[in-house]
Order: sequence, then C-alpha cells, then structure tokens
Amino acid sequence: MARRAKRYVYYFGDGKADGTGKMKDLLGGKGAGLANMTSLKIPVPAGFTITTEACNTYFKNNKKYPAGMWDQVLANLKKVEKSMGAKLGDSREPLLLSVRSGSKFSMPGMMDTVLNLGLNDTTLKALINKTNNERFAYDTYRRLITMFASTVMGVDRQIFEGVLDKMKKKKGVQEDTELSADDLKDLVEKFKTIYKKETGKNFPRDPLQQLRLSINAVFDSWFGDRAETYRNLNDIPHDLGTACNVQAMVFGNMGEDSGTGVGFTRDPSTGQKKFFAEYLIDAQGEDVVAGIRTPLHINEMKRQQPAAYKELDRIYKKLEKHYKDMLDIEFTVQNGKLYMLQTRIGKRTAAASLKIAIQMVKEGLIDKNTAIMRIDPEQIETLLHPMIDTSTPVNVIAKGLPASPGAAVGKVVFSAEDAEKAASKGEKVILVRPETSPEDIGGMDAAQGILTARGGMTSHAAVVARGMGTPCVAGCTAVNIEEKKKSFWVGDTTIKGGDVITLNGSTGEVILGEVPLVQPNMTGDFNIIMKWADDIREIGIRANADTPADARMALKFGAEGIGLVRTEHMFFEADRVQAVREMILADDEAGRRRALKKILPMQRKDFIGIFKVMDGLPVTIRLLDPPLHEFLPKTNTELRELAREMGVSFKKLQARNQALHEFNPMLGHRGCRLAITYPEIYEMQVQAIMEAACQVTRKKIKAIPEIMIPLIADVNELTVLREMTIRIATEIEKKYKTKIPYDVGTMIEIARAALLAHEIAPQADFYSFGTNDLTQTLYGLSRDDAGRFLPYYVEQGIFEDDPFITIDQKGVGLMMKMAIDSSRKIKGKENMKMGICGEQVDPKSVEFCYEVGLTYVSGSPFRLPQARLSAAQATLRKKYPKRYPKESIA
Amino acid sequence: MARRAKRYVYYFGDGKADGTGKMKDLLGGKGAGLANMTSLKIPVPAGFTITTEACNTYFKNNKKYPAGMWDQVLANLKKVEKSMGAKLGDSREPLLLSVRSGSKFSMPGMMDTVLNLGLNDTTLKALINKTNNERFAYDTYRRLITMFASTVMGVDRQIFEGVLDKMKKKKGVQEDTELSADDLKDLVEKFKTIYKKETGKNFPRDPLQQLRLSINAVFDSWFGDRAETYRNLNDIPHDLGTACNVQAMVFGNMGEDSGTGVGFTRDPSTGQKKFFAEYLIDAQGEDVVAGIRTPLHINEMKRQQPAAYKELDRIYKKLEKHYKDMLDIEFTVQNGKLYMLQTRIGKRTAAASLKIAIQMVKEGLIDKNTAIMRIDPEQIETLLHPMIDTSTPVNVIAKGLPASPGAAVGKVVFSAEDAEKAASKGEKVILVRPETSPEDIGGMDAAQGILTARGGMTSHAAVVARGMGTPCVAGCTAVNIEEKKKSFWVGDTTIKGGDVITLNGSTGEVILGEVPLVQPNMTGDFNIIMKWADDIREIGIRANADTPADARMALKFGAEGIGLVRTEHMFFEADRVQAVREMILADDEAGRRRALKKILPMQRKDFIGIFKVMDGLPVTIRLLDPPLHEFLPKTNTELRELAREMGVSFKKLQARNQALHEFNPMLGHRGCRLAITYPEIYEMQVQAIMEAACQVTRKKIKAIPEIMIPLIADVNELTVLREMTIRIATEIEKKYKTKIPYDVGTMIEIARAALLAHEIAPQADFYSFGTNDLTQTLYGLSRDDAGRFLPYYVEQGIFEDDPFITIDQKGVGLMMKMAIDSSRKIKGKENMKMGICGEQVDPKSVEFCYEVGLTYVSGSPFRLPQARLSAAQATLRKKYPKRYPKESIA
Repeated sequence: MARRAKRYVYYFGDGKADGTGKMKDLLGGKGAGLANMTSLKIPVPAGFTITTEACNTYFKNNKKYPAGMWDQVLANLKKVEKSMGAKLGDSREPLLLSVRSGSKFSMPGMMDTVLNLGLNDTTLKALINKTNNERFAYDTYRRLITMFASTVMGVDRQIFEGVLDKMKKKKGVQEDTELSADDLKDLVEKFKTIYKKETGKNFPRDPLQQLRLSINAVFDSWFGDRAETYRNLNDIPHDLGTACNVQAMVFGNMGEDSGTGVGFTRDPSTGQKKFFAEYLIDAQGEDVVAGIRTPLHINEMKRQQPAAYKELDRIYKKLEKHYKDMLDIEFTVQNGKLYMLQTRIGKRTAAASLKIAIQMVKEGLIDKNTAIMRIDPEQIETLLHPMIDTSTPVNVIAKGLPASPGAAVGKVVFSAEDAEKAASKGEKVILVRPETSPEDIGGMDAAQGILTARGGMTSHAAVVARGMGTPCVAGCTAVNIEEKKKSFWVGDTTIKGGDVITLNGSTGEVILGEVPLVQPNMTGDFNIIMKWADDIREIGIRANADTPADARMALKFGAEGIGLVRTEHMFFEADRVQAVREMILADDEAGRRRALKKILPMQRKDFIGIFKVMDGLPVTIRLLDPPLHEFLPKTNTELRELAREMGVSFKKLQARNQALHEFNPMLGHRGCRLAITYPEIYEMQVQAIMEAACQVTRKKIKAIPEIMIPLIADVNELTVLREMTIRIATEIEKKYKTKIPYDVGTMIEIARAALLAHEIAPQADFYSFGTNDLTQTLYGLSRDDAGRFLPYYVEQGIFEDDPFITIDQKGVGLMMKMAIDSSRKIKGKENMKMGICGEQVDPKSVEFCYEVGLTYVSGSPFRLPQARLSAAQATLRKKYPKRYPKESIA
Repeated sequence: MARRAKRYVYYFGDGKADGTGKMKDLLGGKGAGLANMTSLKIPVPAGFTITTEACNTYFKNNKKYPAGMWDQVLANLKKVEKSMGAKLGDSREPLLLSVRSGSKFSMPGMMDTVLNLGLNDTTLKALINKTNNERFAYDTYRRLITMFASTVMGVDRQIFEGVLDKMKKKKGVQEDTELSADDLKDLVEKFKTIYKKETGKNFPRDPLQQLRLSINAVFDSWFGDRAETYRNLNDIPHDLGTACNVQAMVFGNMGEDSGTGVGFTRDPSTGQKKFFAEYLIDAQGEDVVAGIRTPLHINEMKRQQPAAYKELDRIYKKLEKHYKDMLDIEFTVQNGKLYMLQTRIGKRTAAASLKIAIQMVKEGLIDKNTAIMRIDPEQIETLLHPMIDTSTPVNVIAKGLPASPGAAVGKVVFSAEDAEKAASKGEKVILVRPETSPEDIGGMDAAQGILTARGGMTSHAAVVARGMGTPCVAGCTAVNIEEKKKSFWVGDTTIKGGDVITLNGSTGEVILGEVPLVQPNMTGDFNIIMKWADDIREIGIRANADTPADARMALKFGAEGIGLVRTEHMFFEADRVQAVREMILADDEAGRRRALKKILPMQRKDFIGIFKVMDGLPVTIRLLDPPLHEFLPKTNTELRELAREMGVSFKKLQARNQALHEFNPMLGHRGCRLAITYPEIYEMQVQAIMEAACQVTRKKIKAIPEIMIPLIADVNELTVLREMTIRIATEIEKKYKTKIPYDVGTMIEIARAALLAHEIAPQADFYSFGTNDLTQTLYGLSRDDAGRFLPYYVEQGIFEDDPFITIDQKGVGLMMKMAIDSSRKIKGKENMKMGICGEQVDPKSVEFCYEVGLTYVSGSPFRLPQARLSAAQATLRKKYPKRYPKESIA
C-alpha cells in the first residue's frame, strides 16, 4: 500500500482554509493570518501556504523539495485557478501570483518576496486585452522582471532603478505613475536586456519555472545574511524555517480606483485607540515598503474610496476583536474592491504597549494576566530614560555596546577631572575614556553620558553607569582615543574636546552633533502595570545600590531591599581614598589600624544613610572586594605627588605599588583573601555596619544588615570570617545594648564554592550568587577581555548568548542548581535565603532564578521594572504552561 | 557501679610491657619502641607512657588532665619504684626520672624533655651517700635546674650556660667534665639563685610537683611554635597529640665506666652495612644532642668498655632483625651496664634509602614491595641534581619557594642577555629577575640557576626551570631588585652584578658566596629500584617536553610518551618570534597567512625532531595557548625598534599593542579562542604536525601525534576545531599518501568543560586534564598572584595544601572525577585515554590520578622518577590496603 504523502501545502480561499490561525509553527505568521482571515469570511485572494516543515526538509535534502510537495503545489494551484477563474500562463485569463516568505516570528523585510509572477510575453498580451490597461500591464511586467532578477537571480536592484530614474529624468517626471504606457513598454525591453546581460539567460517564460525558482528563493532567503543577523539579534532559533505563501495577485496599480495600504488598528506609538494607517493610490505594496512614494493619510482613502474604506473599517474592527490585540494589517483595493493581504500582531513602543494592554483589560477583551504577558520586559526600560527623537535623521559615526540605556548629549571631555570641572560650570559633557576605573567615579557622575573604547557589558563603566542611570556606550573599539591631544578619531572623522556628540545607550550608537531628545514618559500606565506585575510575581526584587541616593532610586523603581552594597565604591570618594592609601601603604598591622580608624566614621556614616532610606528592608552589604592596588594611583607623576602628600619616599611607594601589581587581578589577592591576611580591614567594616545599625535603631529606624563575605573558595575562609564578624557584632551590640537582626552570609561566585556549597551552607545565613564572577571562573573568561571574541562567538552560535548578559543555564545555571539543592538539603537550611546580584535581570535569567527557587533577584535600579515584569511573566508561565508557553519569550 | 577509668598510662619494665611496638598512634614512636624493646627482653630502665589520647583530652579540657590519669601515673610510678628498688623523693634510695615527649611521627628536637627529675636538697644528699660520688650528684642537680628552668618555666637557657662558661674560664678548663665537685656545688647555688630571680619562685622541692609540671610542659610543647612549623613543613596533622614517657634515669655521667651514645644500625648517609654510632664517656644524652662535647667514634667504646660494646652489638642486630629496617638507637652505660633508651626507624639520605632497601631484599629481610614502600618518592629527586655539601656552613640571606630542585653556584646577572653573554664566555651565572617571561628562555637556559622575586611554584620561571632541570628559587619576595643599578638587596645586604651566590632549589635558600656542591649519584641502585617500581605500577608515565633535547631527557628518566608539547615555546625562539610578531600585527587574514607561511617550516622541523626521538611513542601536542600579546615587546624602545625593522609605523604598532592588552590575560583571548577567531593559526600548526609525521614515516620512524586543543569551555568550540583538524590532516595524508595514527583531543582545564564533559567526550579522542588552569578557574585563583596569600593560607590550615603543588582532591579532584565518570559512561568512550599534564606528580596527586582511573600522569623529566615510584606505591596501597595503609605517605 502506497504511503500517502505528508501534507506540505495548505489551501485558503473562498471562506475556507485548510489551516487555522493557531498554526504559526507550520504556516508561519503570514500563512496562519491568511488562513484565519479566510475562515472569518474576510475577503482574501485565494492561495496556499507551503509549510516550514517543507522548507526544513528542503535544507536537509540538499535543497531538494520533499517528496510529494511539488505535486501538492500543482494540485493547490488548480484550486486557486478555479477560485480566481484564471489560469497560470493562460493566454486569455492569466492568473498572476505573489510568492512571499512568512516565518513563525515576524522578521520584517528580512526575507524575499516575488510579486506579479506568471507574466511573460503571452500572458502580458492577455492582461492588456483583459484589463484594457496597457500602462498597468507593462508597469506590472517591469515590476516582475525587477523583483525576479534581484530576488531570485541576485542581480543588483539598483541597475534597474538607475534605468528607471534615467527614464523619469528624460521624461521630466517625478513619480513612477507619471510614466506613460509607452515609457513602461520601453522599460520592459530594457529590463529584459539587463536581465540577459546580468544572468546570462533569458527571462524565463514558463510561469511554473518562475514559480519553482521563486519558492526556492523564498526558502533560501531563510539563511540569507540579513535574516541570520536579524535572528541572532532577536534571539530567534535558526531551525524554524520559513513557510512560503503563494497567493493570487490583486492589483493596486490598476488606476485611480485602486490602491494599497498598511496600517495598525491602534496607534503603535502612543497606544491611542484610533486607526493608524497609510494609503497609496495606484500602487503595489512594495511601493509603500520601499518608500518610493510618500503614502497618504488613511483619510485620503476615506475621501476617495468611501465604500472600500467602510469595508476596511468593519474588517479591522472584526479582526481586532478576534485577535484581542492591536494588529498590523496590509490590504489592496483593486478597482474599488478591498482585499486583505496580511494581518499580524502589531509591533509597538513600550508606551503604546502599556496603554493598549490596560485599555483592552478595560474593554474586557483580555484579563490582567494576558495584559502582563503582552508586554516585552526589555522594552519597558526605554520608558525610564530620555530617548533619541526618532524623527530626526542622525549621523552615526560608530557603534559600541548598548551598556546603559537612554540618550545623552554633551561636549566631549577626556578625563574625569575635566568632566567635573565642566559640570560645575553647568556644562553638559560626555566623558570619553579608553576604559573607566573607580577613580573616574566623580567624572562619571558629573557626565551626561559615558563612552569607552574598551570593556564589555559588565565592564566598570557599564556597571557603574547603569547603577547611576547614566547612558553609556562601552567597548566602542572603532573609537581611537588620543588622550594627550584631547581628541579621538573614527575612520576619517576626528572629534576634539568640546565638540558635541550624542550617545544612544539603548542601541550603542555614537552620533555626531546634537540630536533632540524626548523626555521619559513614566505615566500612570506604567504604575498600573507594575502593580499588576507585583501582585502576580513570586520572586523578590532587590537593587544593587551603593549610596543613599542609589537606595532612594531603588525604592522608586520597586526594590524590596538592597541585594548588593559594594562598600569599595565608598572607598573611592576623594575625602577617603587618601586614608585608604595610607592603609595600603602601611608597613604593619598597627599602621593599617591607624588608617582604618580614619575610615571608620566615614563608612559608618554611609551605612547610616542607607539604613535610613531602607528603613525596615534588608540591606546586603558586601565587605571589601577588589584588589588593593585598584586604590593606588596609576602613573609615576601621581605616585610622586602622593608620596609627597603622605610623607613617604617615592621609592618606597613605588616598591609597594609594584609589589601590589597583579598579573590577573580578577584572580588575585582580593575579597575574603584580603581579610584572611589583613583581618583588620573587615573588622573595621563590620564595626561600621553594626555601629550604624545600632545608632539608627535609637532613632526608631529598623536596620536589617546582611553582612556578606565575598570570594569564598573554601568553607574554612568563611568559618574564620564568620567567627570574626559575630565576635565584633556581639561586642557592639553589647556596647549599644541593642539587638540587631543581622545575618552573615556569603557570595557564591567562585566555581569551587558552588561545587562544595554543601560544606559552606552550615556557615552561612544566606547566599548571594555572584553570577558575573561565577561565569568568569566557570568559563575561564574575563568579562573585561572578552570583547575581542565573545561577540563573534555569539554571532557564530558557538555560545547561544553572551553569558554575562543572560545566565548560561547549562553551565553556570547547573552549578547554581547544584549549590542550591545541595545546600537546602542540609537540615535547618531548607529555606535558606538565596539571591543573585550579578545584574543579569533579563527575562530569561529572571525566569531561571525563579525556577531554581531563588528568594530574590537584584539589579541596578533602572532595570528593576523589567525584572518585576519578567518575574510576573515567569510566574504566569509556570502556573499556566499551556496558556503561556515558554517560547512566548522570543 | 563505678565506671572504670580509661587507661591513659602504659607500663614497661622487667621484660614486660602493657603496650606493643605497633601502638604508635597511642604511645608515640618512642613509647612504642620502649614497650617493644622491653618485651624483647632488652635492658630498658622501667617506666611508663602517658598516651596521646591523654594529651588530646588535656587540650580539650582547657589543660586539665583527663579523669583518672594522675592516679594512674601514681600507680605506675609505684611499679617503677618497685622495679628500680628506689623511691621518688626518698632520702635513702631516691629514684630519678626522665620525662620525654614522643609523637606518632618523629619530630626530632621539636618537643621538650626533662632529665634527672626528682632531685632536691634531700635526695641530693641521698644520691651523694649512695653513689659516694659528690661530683656526679652536683653535676646531675645543675643539669636538672637548667633543664627544668628552661623547659618547664621558659627561662632562657643561655643565662645558665653563660654562668657555666664563666666558671670554666675562671678555672681555666675546656670541658664540663674538668670541673670539680666544688665547682659544681658552687654552680648549683648560683643556678638556684638565677631560678628564683627569673621565675620569682624557689626551685620546687616536691618531686611530684616537678613531675606534674614536666608532664604539662611536654604536653604543651605539642603546640609550641617549633613543633607547629615542623608539622606544617612535614605534612603531619596537628590533632595527633604527643605521648609522654616517664622513665627511671640511668646515668652516663657516673664516671669513666659510664657514658652515652647514639647510632644507626647502617650508614644513614651511604646505606653501607656497618654500625654507625658515636659515644661520649661520662656524659648524659643531652650533651650529645647539644653538641657540647665532640663525641667519639664508637670504636672508642669498644676499646674502653668491651663488655658493654659486645652487648650493644648483639642488641642492635637483634633489633634490626626484628624491625627489618635500619634503626636509629640511643643508649646509656651506667657503671659498665648497658641500657637502651630509644629505638626507631632511622632517617637516611635518598642514596642510603635505595641501598638499604636493595640490600635488605638481598638479605631476605623484606620483599621488593616493601622495599618500594620504604623509599620516599620526594626524596628521590635529590639524587638527580647536584646538591649543597651539607658539611659546609652556609650564609642563607633569603628563602623563596623551592621551585626547581638542585643547587647552583654562579655570578649574579640581571638580564637574559647578560646571562647568555657570560655563558658564551664560559662563565657560570645565576639569572636574577623580578619574574621571567618567555623572552628570557635563552638566558634561563644559559644560567646555572634562576632566582625570581615574584611568582609561585608554577610560575613561568618554575615551570621552565623544572623542564630544563635548572635549579630555581622563585617568589623570593625578600629580594629587592634594582634592575637599572644591576643589584639587589635583602635586608642590609646588597648583592651586585658579578657577586657570587649559591641557590638551593630543593629548599628555596639563597646563599651568599660559593658553596661546594656534591655531584648527583645515579648509581645502579637507582636503576634497580626504578625497574622494580615500573614492574609494579599500573598508571602510565609521560613527560612534558618542548624540544628534542627535552624529549631525550624524558626518555632517560623513564617517560613512555610525551604528555605535553607546548608549541608556543617554539614560537619564542629568536629566529621565529619576528615572524610571529608579523602575524600578530597583520591587518587581515591574508597578512596573517603570509606570516604563518614563514613559521610553518620551522614548526615542522620542531616536530620532526621530537617525532624522531619519540619513535613509536605517543606525543601530545598542544596547539597555541597563550594570549598573543605575550609575543610582543614590552617597552616603547623595543616597540620602536620593532616598528623600524618591520616597516610599520610606531603609532600603528603601539595601537595594536594596546588593543592586545588584557586585564586578566589568563582569562582572555587565548587558546582555542584564538583559533575560533583566527583559524589560520591552528591550521598552520596542524599542517606542520601532519607534514612532519608524514615525512618521518618515510624514514621508517613511527610518529603518533595526539593533537590537543586547549581551553575548551563549550563543546561547540571543539566541534569546529576538530572538524578543521581532521580536514587539514586528511588533506596532508592524501598529499603524502600516508596514514598517520593521529588523535584529536582536548585539555579539560576550564571548570565549565569539566562540568559538561559528557557533552565534550563524543568530540574528543582523549582528554588531558590541565590541572593548573582547572585549579585556577575553579578557585578563581591566579597562580602567578597567589604568592601573597597562598603560603599564609597553607600555614594557617585554611587550605590543606597548595593546590598548585598537590591536586585539591575535594574540589578539583571532584570535578575531574565527574568529568571522567560522565565521559566514560558514553558509549564507545568507556576506555577513553585520559591523562594529566599539570605537573602535579607529587605522591598524593599521582595516587589520586591512579585511583580515579587516569591513563597516565605527565610531568617535567626530572620529576618522573618520583612519579614512577609514587605510582608503584599507590598500586601497592590499593592492592594491599592492610599491609600498606594510606597514612604511610606521611
């Protein structure tokens, strides 16, 4: 018994469709939309969809169609011919076809389309006879040749456009539509000649050959460069394949009673409930897309073709009610009759996305859960920062990493000092540095935006800028800085200190000159959605914050505590770095203690400030983490100056500085290793924390310090330092006669600590996973040095994601899971508090943290809204896996 | 019913002993020896041993004796009194006692002893009456006061010695024995006064109080500084505790027919079978130990006290037959009668250890297995290098890490160039550098020894020096180098270029001036033992070797293949580094390929050389590993020169150099990451390897290359590079019409690769565990930077061992085990070849590698003999766990 061939082709037409609107996997978004509209009795030209499965098999078979597919194409073509009362290649009633791609996820403009297929010299004549419109027929023919040549045969489209432009010039006209039938006839001949010259072949006469080649071209475009890049950027898997939609042509270019349009059912920019569409009279869809003519406001259609408009109005409303979402639609009017060609969920700005979701809940179209699922968490962030006014053309001179979102305009300065000086005069500046170091903090704070030539998404510049909410473009390797000359160059362009540039920290663009900015729009909508998200989510949200100002910002963005206070940031402030240096340079413990005594009151003041802001909420304080040499000046000149100020010999200072040099500071003498060798440093910090807590308690403020020991690799380190911490804390509690609800915990950031977490857990009240260092140590990969190969790795698919942006679930995640599970198995540690402070609060990472059972995630204040939303979505996906399947992340 | 108290005290005397020779855990080495000798009817003064358990309980109880212990002491004291016919404190027949420490492992001189206990003014008189020897009695009394004051009360012994010396001067005599009874009587009074002045108390009269305080002192000495340091150095656990031996005194200081001696049953230096002992007439044991008088050759005893000597001869032979090992003994002759005071296994040199083991096998005393177990693998290495002549006094000015064993003498030079220049004139030099870099290779090779101020046991200097067999002291932080001045200083000493120093790479000592060296002694004994070891061991032995010369050395020391060829070492040679630099500085792939073409024939030649030496043995070749910037010059002057030579602009070179800078090069753009971004580098290397293999095959030489891809963190990296390797290899095999039995494998050195090894295994023919990098990434610890805290960590017991010297079994080992087990579970990978190339070939690491099922270990050639021996011992321990328990490592 012969096995029946698999169905590779799905027909739609005359109110009936083989497929449904839910079959996006198989039919792609466009095919599913066409099937859906057909079933809804909406006028759609008949056609059929070749499945994504056929496409995938085609690639697996070395670009051969799967068995039976072509026969199914021919059979369904017959049905289309019957429905349209026309035949492909017929010399009297010729059927013309469009062939379009359509994958599961919208990839606008990334793949290929061929329109008007089926024309040749024979069918051309038939078309002329039938329509009695020679001009239309030749216009259609020249479009086909152009599209087929460029899309299918790879001929440069510009060659055709050039000839067209020449013709228009010669005729002294502006628009294509002003060319006469004869002009177009002439063009067709010219285009055929070009086709022959460029491809070595005649333009194919056989419509079936045209069809076959066009289907191949659509399939092949799935692995075209543009498409691959787009998928990489948008995290779309490469193995989905594209469907191919073959559909009877309807013609918007048949004269004044014809036209074509695209539109959104609501305003995609603001979310306002009003039809938002554009229309071109006497044109085909490609003219709108290609921007050849400026389209008209939809009201123009209403005025000129009221009947068609009325039908459109009815249909778009019906569709929106059906899809329960804002839609993006395409349609064509042929001799006054409306045809729908596409419908899909419309893309929208963050602001629109909020407004539409809330409105639709009010309208009873969707519930709150669905509203929450509709909003892209990563998009939310754009609401919090000033943005580039997208209506302004810009001159992008370089592109780096979008390290801290938002846009900034200012004069270029090349040092932190210059930034602070200029800012003190009220000038707006952009700080441009090869890289930033903690000493630049003041300047970074003073600048509107930060641009660095080196470093990745989690470089010092990036982390600090995100914490401050300052826009930052990092690792912009095209930027060549000449610090001494106070200038930088990119290609042929040189930018001097004082020149104005604009940074787009959301895209990584560096723009020459000043670009107008749009101020952020944190409307009531934002707060409504955040409230809904908070009601749904089940994982806590904390902020990384180092100062009372950061802490206030954190509360504003919804933090329920501080997940990471980096105490070293306090060390860098001008008034105390001197004392810190004294400590480092001290010859012995006594000298170090003397210097630490000076730092103590300042640290205490810092903590008092933070405790006051966070009254009643937990504050995780990480004790000193970075290597000591980070605090020392870098150049001999600076060193000499410091030596003078401190009254020590330059030689001694230099020797000490050299002795502190490390080959791999990330893996060096830092974190708890400093405290094991110089216990007095942490002793001072614990004292400062506990005294601050005791002092604010007297003022009826509730301090909940969580003292965190970083860089533990072996439980013995923690045992020693926990003992020390409790000893000091107890002394101070006694002195102040106050009990503080403090905890002592550790970072799990060294791979070995994660591996042996079961040994560490009994010594820790809580964990915070330092996913940056954990990623660095597990991968043997320095985040500051990865810029030269990591982007290439991601591009090539060697790493699925940048593990510093999205948690590497397979490796780092496995390690975390092992640590969590092995620790919570220990008696008394079943509910151990565990968080993450690595700033990975993208949706995938938040979902992962929620799934493995972390207590909270923590990120920079500006990233909390997206974390809250991601957390809500993760909860919904877990609770309703059928309704909200995982892939809806993409 | 009253519970009977635990036994804390074990009696021995009159041919009967409560304990046995096997109870070293409980009675310590000395106590077990005394019990054993007593049971063998050898004359031993009666006494008892207080157990290590008592000592440990004492520390747990805040320095209180465990319940019942003191009563048991008193009861056993009675038995001693009965046996000796004397009583402690008796006014007629006074018993005197010795109180000595004795732990499981010998810690010579590290703990405390009190002799002649029981004397006071009353018993002194009795002693005089009884012995009719006033001189002897006062001599004994002054000894007790000195020892008790210094040992129990912490008075500086020098105060007493000073008074004694003064007395000798006053009397015009040389030896203590020349002092008269009156002189000694005078001294006793003076000593009592000193005692009172220094301690604020009278010398205790109550003998039981003397006893109690002495037992405390012995216990307390377990945690004395000297003892703790000794245990740290010798890897002896701190929780064993010491036993305390209380024994009736016999007196070697009773005149010309008395004396005391120590000896070895065979020559501990050469192993020769002859009694090797020294004797002092009219003296107590402490006089021998303290070196107050020069002891006589044992023949002197034979001459003067033939009867006692004959008895000694009989006893030592009996003991050796009983213990079946060379022994270290102590004895005393009192009025012509011999008493044995101690016996234990004797320490010996490596050479002696080999000779004794072989002889005893020949004598039928032990079998080959036991012979193998007797030899300390770590000691073996001293046989391979010239050594410091230990009979010469030396002036040690600093101590660093014992990075590469052996001793070297030479003039100090401060640069590789100077080293090469001097060596070419036939001068012997020591290269002194802050640290070494690959560019110093030539100078390192030319030098007799290498001294660095920075870097650890696995720093560049250490690794390269060990490979070369050149003595090296690394990370000697006390050394302050002033390169420009061509000098270094340590404390107050300044050493200038040209001054002669001696390095002891086996101990880490830096010695001022020239010390005579003893040449290595690789006798037939060495080869016999190695042969026995090879017959026993079950794990393979390979060498890390980068050149044909290294490979020859490897074969000489027993390598069965090369476990690691570091191809980058070939890149540094003067004639090719220029081409390498050209490659690095090339703007594009074409430029890189041009430069690589120049390197290809040189690399091919390297491999041909190695394949020829290793004919028929596997050679694991690691493709380029370090970051590229390591190949570039470091200073602007060098850069400028290079720019001139290469015809590129200085600015360009500088920019490129800067662009190559990395913050954490260990975690940067290196290893397979270079090959993913610049595939042409590995392509050239694979081509060179395969062409070399094909070419030597034509000459009937069997090349077995194992091509190894370093720094894999994700299987995708390996998949891509394995494909490339096989593609190139196949091309070359075709070209040469030759089949090469090559393998493609990877290093497991990144923690993530170990974690996900099950994904990697299908792409690898073999693994080599890079335990250095694995340790670095798992611990987040740079071996080059760890010097400032790692020694302290080990000292404090935070880390049990330096994980770069001994594999961290708990963490790194667990990760290895996970990787091995998960990979070998995969079908077809059950017997996958897996080795280790991290140079950790110490006994513990070799045993671990054997136990987890590695195929081979690989280390530098000079360390292979110890690895072979360790491997044999590990096998024996596994096969006969009862006979050779694990602790016998210590």
